[in-house]
Amino acid sequence: MKQHPYTIQNIDLHDVCAQFGTPLYVYDAQVIKRQFENFHTAFSGIDHKIMYAVKSCTNLSIMKYMRMLGAGIDTVSIPEIKMGLKTGFKPEEIVFTPNVVEFCEIREAVELGISINIENLQNLEAFGKEFKDRYPVCIRLNPNMLSEIDSGKANLSSLNFASINKEHYDEVSEKSVAAWHNQSKFGISLIQFDKVLTLVKKYNIRINGIHLHSSHVILSTDVFEKGVKAIFKIAKRFNHLEYVDFGGGIMVKHHPDDTVIEINEIGAILKKEYDKFCVSFGKKIKIWFEPGRYLMSESGCLLARAVVLKTNGFINFVGTNTGFNHLLRPMMYDAYHEITNITNPDGELKKYNIVGNLCEIDNIGTHRLLNKVRQDDIIMIKNAGAYGFSMSSNYNTRPKPAEVFIINGKAKLIRKRENFNDLIHNQIELDFNQFQ
Amino acid sequence: MKQHPYTIQNIDLHDVCAQFGTPLYVYDAQVIKRQFENFHTAFSGIDHKIMYAVKSCTNLSIMKYMRMLGAGIDTVSIPEIKMGLKTGFKPEEIVFTPNVVEFCEIREAVELGISINIENLQNLEAFGKEFKDRYPVCIRLNPNMLSEIDSGKANLSSLNFASINKEHYDEVSEKSVAAWHNQSKFGISLIQFDKVLTLVKKYNIRINGIHLHSSHVILSTDVFEKGVKAIFKIAKRFNHLEYVDFGGGIMVKHHPDDTVIEINEIGAILKKEYDKFCVSFGKKIKIWFEPGRYLMSESGCLLARAVVLKTNGFINFVGTNTGFNHLLRPMMYDAYHEITNITNPDGELKKYNIVGNLCEIDNIGTHRLLNKVRQDDIIMIKNAGAYGFSMSSNYNTRPKPAEVFIINGKAKLIRKRENFNDLIHNQIELDFNQFQ
Repeated sequence: MKQHPYTIQNIDLHDVCAQFGTPLYVYDAQVIKRQFENFHTAFSGIDHKIMYAVKSCTNLSIMKYMRMLGAGIDTVSIPEIKMGLKTGFKPEEIVFTPNVVEFCEIREAVELGISINIENLQNLEAFGKEFKDRYPVCIRLNPNMLSEIDSGKANLSSLNFASINKEHYDEVSEKSVAAWHNQSKFGISLIQFDKVLTLVKKYNIRINGIHLHSSHVILSTDVFEKGVKAIFKIAKRFNHLEYVDFGGGIMVKHHPDDTVIEINEIGAILKKEYDKFCVSFGKKIKIWFEPGRYLMSESGCLLARAVVLKTNGFINFVGTNTGFNHLLRPMMYDAYHEITNITNPDGELKKYNIVGNLCEIDNIGTHRLLNKVRQDDIIMIKNAGAYGFSMSSNYNTRPKPAEVFIINGKAKLIRKRENFNDLIHNQIELDFNQFQ
Repeated sequence: MKQHPYTIQNIDLHDVCAQFGTPLYVYDAQVIKRQFENFHTAFSGIDHKIMYAVKSCTNLSIMKYMRMLGAGIDTVSIPEIKMGLKTGFKPEEIVFTPNVVEFCEIREAVELGISINIENLQNLEAFGKEFKDRYPVCIRLNPNMLSEIDSGKANLSSLNFASINKEHYDEVSEKSVAAWHNQSKFGISLIQFDKVLTLVKKYNIRINGIHLHSSHVILSTDVFEKGVKAIFKIAKRFNHLEYVDFGGGIMVKHHPDDTVIEINEIGAILKKEYDKFCVSFGKKIKIWFEPGRYLMSESGCLLARAVVLKTNGFINFVGTNTGFNHLLRPMMYDAYHEITNITNPDGELKKYNIVGNLCEIDNIGTHRLLNKVRQDDIIMIKNAGAYGFSMSSNYNTRPKPAEVFIINGKAKLIRKRENFNDLIHNQIELDFNQFQ
């Protein structure tokens, strides 16, 4: 019996499903801890801070667990900041890294005492006008390594910028990499760096951090090294610098054939450049990271039940009680998630399309070999800990799944399943008699 | 001043935004009524019933308005049925057309007295075992016109099956049409029709309806006619037949270049075949339709504010206070939505990428000519009435927009904007002290 993979911390996932129902998101605290420790180890020679990107899995208990492990948090909206404060993070342990948000959000983050990352000239100018040097601020730069490509110094296929969201797209052509890179809405392009300096000088803005957009999601250590060198070169221009934030985007394997860069290799490159920088800068700075996927992806799975088996004469379908309303990645990004029938681990292998119950094309996985699926078998969709629940919707008016956290050998509910009242909450029924 | 398009029923949309805030979904009752009446007119010679597909815009007040117009509703989940009953629809005015759902949902729909559409052999058999001839039921068939393609009788590019969700995909290659058609999870394939007959006989199931999957979303009247003929031919096999349900999928124009079939042409073809059928069948049957997009799409827009203007040196970006968390279609389906700056209708035309504020690629429209956009201008995203709010999420932990219904010259709130408490509702904060 291949039972072992279908337990988490010795808890049988069938028992978890029996207790909490399906569809169900389940997260394994041990895997989060392992990933957290791997991250720390890779950057052990560097004075660094892990700011968990809460957008990847926005759950209060997951955030509290991250805090217990020693992480700060990376937030992209005011509600995420508020959730951080609610779960006990101190303002200085929270960074706000939004994109194209209204200045009032920046102002609110200042009022809450949060570290702020500004990524466009409009908000930088508004910030300077209002706060001058009274509140330190970080600027998010896009190193715009297109020039590297143009000059032939970098191989296009080795670049894989977060600007094109490779963390989500499983297949991105070289052409679209180039296109997206030109079209990235993120960060302040280095082309505009003189304008940054002008604003900083004009308003006496105190720059305490530099954020490197689109650094980690690369497949070549050479390109990573160039990005790091570029950003440290810029960092020297800011006397008040306290940290460099290398953002997120560290990949994990989804498909067995995925190539990912080893985090230890990144660590070694960064260590070398970091040490050189600190010497030449004359003081030690901190390095921040904003991992989300790296910490959460492998910890989580979505468990669903096979409720209908059908064929159309061409394909055998496993109809599940979940869909892209609960896990958007396969349909949105053509993302690969490994899928297993955990109820029949010794069944003969058969080829299936595993589909959701939405009234749309709703593929979770196509042409997959699974141990023979029978009605009510539990289907495990792996690597669903990051960008799973946080991207879920109520499409087709179905409730969102519950979430369970497995810690110290216990399965704990960390989000209740939605009910009918949740689905109609906030709706207002007009009385049309008055309009007749 | 090009003011006119930026009012609805003489209400200035700026006033609506000032009153209810942005981002905001706004629906125009007059457009819904116009579409409803157009639909009725197109099928006026046929004893028909319009069952509004509530998944396209799942709002209690919209549902009530549809009821006032004389529609029934098409539902795909138990909560949608419950919303229908809550808003005053009688059970017989509700059809349940789900895909691969667990049999307990079918049973619940029976208990509620709803018309039921069964689309797989597993549930048909379970239904027969449990209800025999005590509850009439409709079967959803996939006419599987691939044979038409194989035999060269139909031009592949003229086919546009709902099975491939053309209503969502703006560009679908011929190859993917063929692939999807083979891979459709919807309906019972005609290949399996003998199995349907065996089950019907075995359990004495009372078939009162036939549902045609993937009929309307076609670009050729020839193919539509073939589908209609095929389904009427089958319909004759069922003595208890009361209705044929032609489903949904009637397109509306999104892009000026979109080709859509004229609804009146469909009506004329159907009328001819319907009359012939009724004569040969010996009694009149009803025709049901399940439109969603046709009724709702043009009625609605999403209004957002331009909060950040930035350039990366290549592209001018309009950063808005919405994103694919509120309107998924552009990123999910590459769908085209017309976008207008309603605040500066006489401004010079400039080219922009209009983007959302999510920390991802979040294009609403790329390379669009808009009247010059200034900070705080209101940006109107058109044709957002169908599959807009209903596909929205809380990704990046941002609240969902409010919804406003404009009727009889009055703007009425029909869904409150979410607040922070809504975002953390159902979450459970564990106390980790017990685990230390």
